[in-house]
Amino acid sequence: MIMSFNDFQTTYLSEVTNHMIGKVKALDLPDHLKESMIYSLQAGGKRLRPLMVLATMQSFGRDPKEGMAAASALEMIHTYSLIHDDLPAMDDDDLRRGNPTNHKVFGEAMAILAGDGLLTFSFQLLAEDEHLPDEKKVELIALLARCAGPEGMVGGQVADIEGENGELTVEELQSIHVRKTGKLLMFSVMAGAIMSDASPGELASLEEFAYHVGLAFQIQDDILDIEGSEELIGKPVGSDESKHKSTYPKLLTMSGAKEKLAYHLNGALDSLKRVNRDTDLLEEIANLIAVRNH
Amino acid sequence: MIMSFNDFQTTYLSEVTNHMIGKVKALDLPDHLKESMIYSLQAGGKRLRPLMVLATMQSFGRDPKEGMAAASALEMIHTYSLIHDDLPAMDDDDLRRGNPTNHKVFGEAMAILAGDGLLTFSFQLLAEDEHLPDEKKVELIALLARCAGPEGMVGGQVADIEGENGELTVEELQSIHVRKTGKLLMFSVMAGAIMSDASPGELASLEEFAYHVGLAFQIQDDILDIEGSEELIGKPVGSDESKHKSTYPKLLTMSGAKEKLAYHLNGALDSLKRVNRDTDLLEEIANLIAVRNH
Repeated sequence: MIMSFNDFQTTYLSEVTNHMIGKVKALDLPDHLKESMIYSLQAGGKRLRPLMVLATMQSFGRDPKEGMAAASALEMIHTYSLIHDDLPAMDDDDLRRGNPTNHKVFGEAMAILAGDGLLTFSFQLLAEDEHLPDEKKVELIALLARCAGPEGMVGGQVADIEGENGELTVEELQSIHVRKTGKLLMFSVMAGAIMSDASPGELASLEEFAYHVGLAFQIQDDILDIEGSEELIGKPVGSDESKHKSTYPKLLTMSGAKEKLAYHLNGALDSLKRVNRDTDLLEEIANLIAVRNH
Repeated sequence: MIMSFNDFQTTYLSEVTNHMIGKVKALDLPDHLKESMIYSLQAGGKRLRPLMVLATMQSFGRDPKEGMAAASALEMIHTYSLIHDDLPAMDDDDLRRGNPTNHKVFGEAMAILAGDGLLTFSFQLLAEDEHLPDEKKVELIALLARCAGPEGMVGGQVADIEGENGELTVEELQSIHVRKTGKLLMFSVMAGAIMSDASPGELASLEEFAYHVGLAFQIQDDILDIEGSEELIGKPVGSDESKHKSTYPKLLTMSGAKEKLAYHLNGALDSLKRVNRDTDLLEEIANLIAVRNH
């Protein structure tokens, strides 16, 4: 292993953030729009998605810096989706990671437009990147749009809203999560692999890896909502229950959910073994996701 | 001239609509999301932007059908912007072209997501097009994102909201219109020209043409709000005045606004003369825009 994920994160987390902020700062925009976009990009979080893009490139012996546009575009799309999800017409959240949500600071109209701006700009970033050849840009743009668009994240968000208060089966719950959060995680690994000229076999194994990691991530989220520490996860424990949301522990019992988490973690690690590269960083990320406490 | 704009419109308007609807119908989506996206795509309008893409290609002797992806992507972005503009947090409009706005039919959450879905899908359409080489796709995607994004339409919408109720100068008003409506019109002509392998000189003249057409379009809009027929324009005459909006007639007097309209129409036609192609269709569109009654 070249470095631990902790070291990798220390190096690249701030680099991704600085890259995104720098790109938005360089735009010629109305002041409030720029502030609103930067406010949410700076709000932070684990930056799991862009770090997975870069970690995948590292596994293939590539320079992670060449994936900065794809990593930033992905994180901008994730950020826009949080801004729109928090709106009064959607989840109506006042706080995110302990800070006021975008619309509480800048108003609803600006929050909608900042989200639209980040979404649109993410495709510009990819199309204008100086490292990638046109063929890769087109492949990444098509994949990102499929993962983030109506058949991906947007469709998952609709299915999630429509599934609220209803009784879902495990299959329905899984189908929502695969679209709502899984597809963007899938993009992170696939984008890194595409930029590293991975073989079709490697791409297939990494897609399977990302599928399992995405579901493990969501199951652990549901478990933390019951067993987690309020201080660490930054929101009240039991909020899924009080919103009558379908969750893995609710549908499968807590021990059933933990079994499923172990199943997907193993599935992720097995898929990774079929990739004959230095995938220690990706393995560490999968393990961290499954045992994280926030 | 190969055909009049009227014949051209008759042929291609329904083709653009059918192409867009067909692409969305083919997606695997939650039913309500699909209905919401199609509802606004079907709501119609003049389809000025996609028709200008195709008319530009026709001017260069190309088959307009090869521009269908770019034309559809552009109209989808125009459509998403109308859905989001109509939201309660923005213009709060209940009716558009005499029909209930998207959020009145499908609810606010779905309207936000249908807009996000159309915006994202528009880039997918371009990236997955079967006619264009990768190099053209990347050029068109970058240009579309610049025209529609924070430095273009989204920024213009922010500036428009912030300029409401304030006293604007003619320069400020023009800067808002160039971004809010002008850039997408510019894209329509430039996309058609790029797909037709126009020379740098032709591109420069067509960009100037589009700039003048965009401003002529907006000035005529302002004039119609005062002198137009309520029945023909589909909204109450005098609505700008009652909203205290800055308009060309308000800032320049009616005769000053009409002079400026003539100036931009002449500018458009002059620019077109420098393009040594069969540009009769584009000339007709410019004239129609300046004398239209709705």
